[in-house]
Amino acid sequence: MLIVAALGGNALLKRGEPLTAKTQRANVRTAAKSLAELVRAGHQLVITHGNGPQVGLLALQGAAYKPEDAYPLDVLGAETGGMIGYMIEQEIENALGHDRPVATLLTQVVVDPNDPAFARPTKFIGPVYNKEEAESRAAAAGWHIAADGDKWRRVVPSPAPKEIPDMRVLKLLLDQGVIVICTGGGGIPVLRRNDGSMAGVEAVIDKDAASALLARQLGADALLLLTDVDAVYDDLGTQAAAPIHRITSEQARRLDMPAGSMGPKVAAAADFADTGGISGIGRLEDALAILDARAGTLVTRADTKDS
Amino acid sequence: MLIVAALGGNALLKRGEPLTAKTQRANVRTAAKSLAELVRAGHQLVITHGNGPQVGLLALQGAAYKPEDAYPLDVLGAETGGMIGYMIEQEIENALGHDRPVATLLTQVVVDPNDPAFARPTKFIGPVYNKEEAESRAAAAGWHIAADGDKWRRVVPSPAPKEIPDMRVLKLLLDQGVIVICTGGGGIPVLRRNDGSMAGVEAVIDKDAASALLARQLGADALLLLTDVDAVYDDLGTQAAAPIHRITSEQARRLDMPAGSMGPKVAAAADFADTGGISGIGRLEDALAILDARAGTLVTRADTKDS
Repeated sequence: MLIVAALGGNALLKRGEPLTAKTQRANVRTAAKSLAELVRAGHQLVITHGNGPQVGLLALQGAAYKPEDAYPLDVLGAETGGMIGYMIEQEIENALGHDRPVATLLTQVVVDPNDPAFARPTKFIGPVYNKEEAESRAAAAGWHIAADGDKWRRVVPSPAPKEIPDMRVLKLLLDQGVIVICTGGGGIPVLRRNDGSMAGVEAVIDKDAASALLARQLGADALLLLTDVDAVYDDLGTQAAAPIHRITSEQARRLDMPAGSMGPKVAAAADFADTGGISGIGRLEDALAILDARAGTLVTRADTKDS
Repeated sequence: MLIVAALGGNALLKRGEPLTAKTQRANVRTAAKSLAELVRAGHQLVITHGNGPQVGLLALQGAAYKPEDAYPLDVLGAETGGMIGYMIEQEIENALGHDRPVATLLTQVVVDPNDPAFARPTKFIGPVYNKEEAESRAAAAGWHIAADGDKWRRVVPSPAPKEIPDMRVLKLLLDQGVIVICTGGGGIPVLRRNDGSMAGVEAVIDKDAASALLARQLGADALLLLTDVDAVYDDLGTQAAAPIHRITSEQARRLDMPAGSMGPKVAAAADFADTGGISGIGRLEDALAILDARAGTLVTRADTKDS
């Protein structure tokens, strides 16, 4: 099978953990061991990753040094693609004993300049704050902020991914059996100008949506959205909350999911399942188990659910 | 011809210019237009770049936010590979009208743990301080410091590049006509442990040396080291200073060059010329003119200098 596995940025740099290279590398190593099992089971692998906490951290570092020289989000996104991509590449090479070629490719992703997301920022980046501190930082730095659970965070526009211009290079590498790490942070957000040239834009693309687009365009067999939650839950937050093992894309769309966290995963999983592929959602540690329906939540198209 | 073109980090983010994305992008655009001329002239292109000012900037940003959570130099190097690689890719795609595939590949480069450079850090990074402040920062952060003129700066090890494990992937892309951007910042410095696994290391590899190694291993025809100086000069700093248009590798090695700037370029150019290739040194703007011997300095092997 050709599998696109997307690693959650929040699962690589978790709430409550220090925002250090060391903690991040430990989480990447956990993910790499899990992904290596997919490769050993004979699957071909494309790895993507989020960058919410990481791009927020780089923005905070830049602001702490010289706020007037702040780098735009497209460049910061490219930096996180380097940071996280390198760690994933090294850890998966180590997990596989360096017997398979691995390539980390920077990936621009085209968005629509008229996407309504530019007028309504919703994507959480950076660390969590209590409401008062978030409001004070927002006033100082011109941030938009929003509630994330019982905490508050900076939010930035998250336009929908429309096109991945690097598709030709990606296919070329996959055709040669290379394990590819790409579309980091949902891809570097760019606009296509009227003259055909590209320009970066201040946004962070949702990596689940970008990974679903990538999986569709590659004709992948499976899309795994790996995070720090073991499954999609029904009746979340109630006494009746229970993990869902298998669900159709139609049922998945009817679930009432929080917008900032599980919502985009369920939406991306349903979109990919509609094309006939298998979507899985679960923990970083469980990649192969999710694919084998021993863990996590599988989302499939209605007409294949009992096959 | 297959050409490896190395862009100087100091030419992309110049002393005296603000350390912003905007100034950096303007310099990258200048370089991209120049490199696009090589492609239009029918040459195949591999682009590398330095990262001295950029990796220093990211280290300062991290220290300004949370010095106790400072990221190691291998990860910061990977971040600069994302930052600069993205800008180069976008600008060369724009310069070429998006009619040629371009791929930016993160590149680890193996160094020797017994390299004497680890015991004797010499590579200046970050800003200048007076001696007292440098000593205080060194004590707090565990830096090595050294005198740079009448000021003091942080110094880090600059071990020699020994091996580029990604060579197979690089060749595969070149075989398919892809323009490749790689070995950013001289490559991400890694050590090979006894068990064969890789680990990042606190160092910054000289990008001229890494580019010469890359050019040799690819069997490139030419190595262009592009910077903000128009040529190598004889009798530099004297009234008799004159640009050298052509020189043999043997003569080049006898030149008395400053260690921190033109020295590594001349050494790398001479090393590559010894393998039978053409080395060129000159301005970002002059890539094709240097190759055609209309600008800059060409370094060739002794026995081919009059061919």
